[in-house]
Amino acid sequence: MSDTIEGRNPVLEALRAGRSISRILIARNIEKAGIINEILNLAKEKNIPAEYLEKDELSRMSRTGSHQGIVALVPPRRYFDLDEILSIPLKKQESPFYIVLDGIEDPHNLGAIIRTAEATGVHGVIIRERRAVGLTAGVEKASAGALEYVAVARVNNIARAVETLKKHNIWIIGVDQGGDIDYTGIDLKPPSAIVIGGEGGGISALVKRHCDFLVKIPMTGKITSLNASVAAALVMYEVFRQRRSKISG
Amino acid sequence: MSDTIEGRNPVLEALRAGRSISRILIARNIEKAGIINEILNLAKEKNIPAEYLEKDELSRMSRTGSHQGIVALVPPRRYFDLDEILSIPLKKQESPFYIVLDGIEDPHNLGAIIRTAEATGVHGVIIRERRAVGLTAGVEKASAGALEYVAVARVNNIARAVETLKKHNIWIIGVDQGGDIDYTGIDLKPPSAIVIGGEGGGISALVKRHCDFLVKIPMTGKITSLNASVAAALVMYEVFRQRRSKISG
Repeated sequence: MSDTIEGRNPVLEALRAGRSISRILIARNIEKAGIINEILNLAKEKNIPAEYLEKDELSRMSRTGSHQGIVALVPPRRYFDLDEILSIPLKKQESPFYIVLDGIEDPHNLGAIIRTAEATGVHGVIIRERRAVGLTAGVEKASAGALEYVAVARVNNIARAVETLKKHNIWIIGVDQGGDIDYTGIDLKPPSAIVIGGEGGGISALVKRHCDFLVKIPMTGKITSLNASVAAALVMYEVFRQRRSKISG
Repeated sequence: MSDTIEGRNPVLEALRAGRSISRILIARNIEKAGIINEILNLAKEKNIPAEYLEKDELSRMSRTGSHQGIVALVPPRRYFDLDEILSIPLKKQESPFYIVLDGIEDPHNLGAIIRTAEATGVHGVIIRERRAVGLTAGVEKASAGALEYVAVARVNNIARAVETLKKHNIWIIGVDQGGDIDYTGIDLKPPSAIVIGGEGGGISALVKRHCDFLVKIPMTGKITSLNASVAAALVMYEVFRQRRSKISG
């Protein structure tokens, strides 16, 4: 059983990243210009067969509902082990920077989080096995190709994973509106894992107890929480900003 | 023809905000606890009839596909005029802060942007009539109720709307990866409108020419753009941060 990568940019990014692709399926009537040309040239270079189908056939196979006339068939994505993820910053000689997701269920949110993680130099994203979305075609699409470059580990117990991170001297920072520190008021240059809760109930009580700090994002107005991918992005960019200013200063 | 508001938190927020609701539809087998109880009590207080339906019937009427057993029927939402939106900061005696969306097509993104706008004190969101999503049930849901508190104007010409803002001495700041200023390196305390481009092609060439500044969001890694709602949130929070520190300092 193959997974699909759907849409122009996701397929182009998968090709560029050298992902193993068994076949590329293209709508018969597609205009061969721009990105489509680039995809076809790259596929030819890499000896990946391209097959033309009616648009309806593509739509029937699509798992995201928006394939833009192009679908790549790929082997199911492998998750990384926690150990592999822990070795990434060592190899890069960087201060560890992880994102831990305690129950994200919406593929748009997971995709957007992975996209921001790639943009801010996150070394790995840790997701939950149960009551959480995995690396589906919808997530791949929402990540706009970033999933090709971000290591994702899936664990059955987030609290235990957090304990492992702690043993590696990584600070655990939960993002929670009940937190007592503003997210811009904490030093994020040391090894850090940022914990983001699920869309429904936030970080679970058990995982919250394992956090070294709980930080909050200031809000005016009446609504009491932000979209999970927005909250994650604000804190990821704060880590990124602090670490860049350390280097340039 | 009624619009729907779907899901527990969106319906609760609509009730709290005093939105006109003609009827509340509830799945017959729903557990009457927590938020559902709160909704039923508020509806009773406000003399809004509640009607029990089979879950299947609710699912058939649902426009978002995730009604969580509760749907409110409401008159179609009215858009604000540009003039109304321009008067809001005057009444609040605040420095104007607007978001201009040049072609957001994804309801998740528009909803998340409205949610962050509400959290950061944005005075109004301006959206495009064509090739853009309007205020649908999906947007309402993704906004988690924030749409009740944010003024949204829909215009048929973004460039002309931007010209109007300029005549009111509002700086037009486009978010564009081709920009030459880091978004944290510009003074956002004066009256400002932040322009965010669509998911596909960013800000259109014409609108870009009308911008006073183009700011970029720094990125490491290989992907060259962020999710539109994430980019919008980062800049909104920078405006919010600068203006808060002005007050407290």
